[in-house]
Amino acid sequence: MTIADIASQAKSASILLAAVKTDVKNNALAEIAKALKANSEEIIKANLSDLEEAEKNNLAAPLLKRLKFDQAKINDVCQGIQSLIKLDDPVGKTIKATELTNGLELYKVSCPIGVIGVIFESRPDALVQISTLCLKSGNAAMLKGGSEAEKTNSILAKIIARATEKTAIPSGWIQLMHTRQDVSAMLKLDSSIDLIIPRGSNEFVKYIMDNTNIAVLGHADGICHVYIDDSADINMAVNIATDSKCQYVAVCNAAETLLVHKDIAQAFLPRLKDSLDKFNVELLGCEKTTKIIDIKPADDNDWKTEYLDYKLSIKIVDNIDEAIEHINTFGSGHTDTIVTSSTKNGEKFMNLVDAGDVFLNCSTRFSDGFRYGLGAEVGISTNKIHARGPVGLEGLLIYKYKLIGKGHTVTDFSNGKYKYTHKNIEKDFNL
Amino acid sequence: MTIADIASQAKSASILLAAVKTDVKNNALAEIAKALKANSEEIIKANLSDLEEAEKNNLAAPLLKRLKFDQAKINDVCQGIQSLIKLDDPVGKTIKATELTNGLELYKVSCPIGVIGVIFESRPDALVQISTLCLKSGNAAMLKGGSEAEKTNSILAKIIARATEKTAIPSGWIQLMHTRQDVSAMLKLDSSIDLIIPRGSNEFVKYIMDNTNIAVLGHADGICHVYIDDSADINMAVNIATDSKCQYVAVCNAAETLLVHKDIAQAFLPRLKDSLDKFNVELLGCEKTTKIIDIKPADDNDWKTEYLDYKLSIKIVDNIDEAIEHINTFGSGHTDTIVTSSTKNGEKFMNLVDAGDVFLNCSTRFSDGFRYGLGAEVGISTNKIHARGPVGLEGLLIYKYKLIGKGHTVTDFSNGKYKYTHKNIEKDFNL
Repeated sequence: MTIADIASQAKSASILLAAVKTDVKNNALAEIAKALKANSEEIIKANLSDLEEAEKNNLAAPLLKRLKFDQAKINDVCQGIQSLIKLDDPVGKTIKATELTNGLELYKVSCPIGVIGVIFESRPDALVQISTLCLKSGNAAMLKGGSEAEKTNSILAKIIARATEKTAIPSGWIQLMHTRQDVSAMLKLDSSIDLIIPRGSNEFVKYIMDNTNIAVLGHADGICHVYIDDSADINMAVNIATDSKCQYVAVCNAAETLLVHKDIAQAFLPRLKDSLDKFNVELLGCEKTTKIIDIKPADDNDWKTEYLDYKLSIKIVDNIDEAIEHINTFGSGHTDTIVTSSTKNGEKFMNLVDAGDVFLNCSTRFSDGFRYGLGAEVGISTNKIHARGPVGLEGLLIYKYKLIGKGHTVTDFSNGKYKYTHKNIEKDFNL
Repeated sequence: MTIADIASQAKSASILLAAVKTDVKNNALAEIAKALKANSEEIIKANLSDLEEAEKNNLAAPLLKRLKFDQAKINDVCQGIQSLIKLDDPVGKTIKATELTNGLELYKVSCPIGVIGVIFESRPDALVQISTLCLKSGNAAMLKGGSEAEKTNSILAKIIARATEKTAIPSGWIQLMHTRQDVSAMLKLDSSIDLIIPRGSNEFVKYIMDNTNIAVLGHADGICHVYIDDSADINMAVNIATDSKCQYVAVCNAAETLLVHKDIAQAFLPRLKDSLDKFNVELLGCEKTTKIIDIKPADDNDWKTEYLDYKLSIKIVDNIDEAIEHINTFGSGHTDTIVTSSTKNGEKFMNLVDAGDVFLNCSTRFSDGFRYGLGAEVGISTNKIHARGPVGLEGLLIYKYKLIGKGHTVTDFSNGKYKYTHKNIEKDFNL
């Protein structure tokens, strides 16, 4: 089967899946969890084989750790599925209802997007999480995992597909792709695939965004800023900057650049350095910064680099406007925070910084679906349309307008027989 | 100035415009209306010059009519601006508020998308409507109108820009492009332009969609279907089919194909023909149809053609499933309607037809922002993400997450000092 055939199967399944009732989906999710537990041995065996191969290929230790999928991980994903079962079904919600005229009622109702293509990193947990999120939201899933997890992913996809075949879920809703060529082929299938969610390195996400006409939900860079305003509480500023940089460096919501108002730089920077030195953070500063603390000079490249490491660039700015301008020039629209005791400046920063997540007096590291309480995270988006910031299940949904008449024609209105009333109706869609 | 320079000006203006208060925007809108009225003479003179040129070039009569921009049209657009002033400001609405922990509050707040590129047809009214919709929603606008309206559009854009310069609206928020080359250049500016709304012929919209990485909101084809189920009331079916086809043929929500259940075809088709003959509709049918009514045969191309004319293709289907399958294969995801007295089939059709607008017992012609009561229409979208169907002002909006803390760090949570509460807050964002 070609990727086009697979996508066409997914498309057909997605049409039927859109109309599947909540209890059927929840039952299928329970069957998936049951099957994963029942087939633990087979899964672990496949994973051990992937691990062996990866060790032979000298995969780095952190990647090996992510690749590992043992009984504990199986139990974790099954627990995740139980939480997903408890989540409210996001499909079929009446968003708005309007009477257009007596007997002619318009309902805006949430529905799945259709076919979602997801390309994810080496963790096999991702396959289970993503496919079950798609199922709960009524979407078909075309999945491609890291090649080093190929055997684990294959068996997981097979178990999940088999588990739902016994239920009323349309077969073909979950499809696994195997090669980079498969991904390239998928990027061209804009008539069957409705949304692509790429996870992985910046270069990879950028490649996807630049090579498809299909909508892409995600983010390439995460160049997050901490701005210390002149009125900041210095203790708070040091804490927030340290947390934003050091709490976990390898993630997109970690800070990469610190901006500091010139009037507080002298007092703040030495305190910051003391704090970051405990984590051995490499500091690079603008010329003015290097006159206050003894660190290496930053060059223009530093302002646009996502280090994902114990490394931070620092710039002294004349005022909040220069800080905002810097962020809107070099930032990636991900997450930026201001530390200030001025409400006016807090408001200004949050209004004028063009990012999905703008924070006041807290760490950039809060930018995350779990911390936001979204229930489940589909990804973090720096898009300016559809969904932005940490995206929950609602990112996998769109809506349909359903209009119910009793034979109404537009001619009836142009004739003057009917008049538009456009009254809001407090009623859920129900035929 | 290059198009990149213009886009960069628009981008800078958009950042400031996002924070402009409602009364400032409404005041600017009032200034625009005042200036249009005050400069009526100059506008009409420019338009007469465009009209003269167009007549020399033998522009078709309907196009000439659309191009005409006289005092009555000026009064109309000014009235439109007054309605827009009365509309609620869609920016700054708190969509959701959550307490993450005591003192750490998350607000999901609506905000403008940024810079919208709009390419529109020959009507100069469109320039005024689109730019004022952008202004009300806090977006900068890059506009390109039909070349035959170049003089009218230039003077309109100049008057609008001048009128807002006296207000607190950032200059540069409205930009006019002049050539096709400008449009091609704009398609590449994905770092400054956030959304493109193309209006015009199918080929043109498809060209835009295929040649940019910027998100595009719109529709190419409008291949709308009327399906007559076996249990349909025949009078109602004839009325709805006639209205869907004939009420106004040149628009995207007019029906192009009629599907009819085999068990009602014999009774329905002659009645339909009688009704459509009054409008001189050319009918093309599948083999079975031509055995019931004396019309020309349809070929496979007819099922995927948007006639935009007094022309309709007709196909007899075995059952509702074949109708749904046909629509999902040949339709454009725009608007499809079923005529039936079966609630079950109505529900099935509305769930399984993959279109932005799915109707029961009413005409496809209702698919329209004004008829839906949206207040203003930005366009009709067949996208599967962001906005679908007739799109009102909300299509020009996205949201930001604003998180307000008191020095909160993620370390506080990993240390166990704080716990996530994730409580909904019934409060609008306010610092």
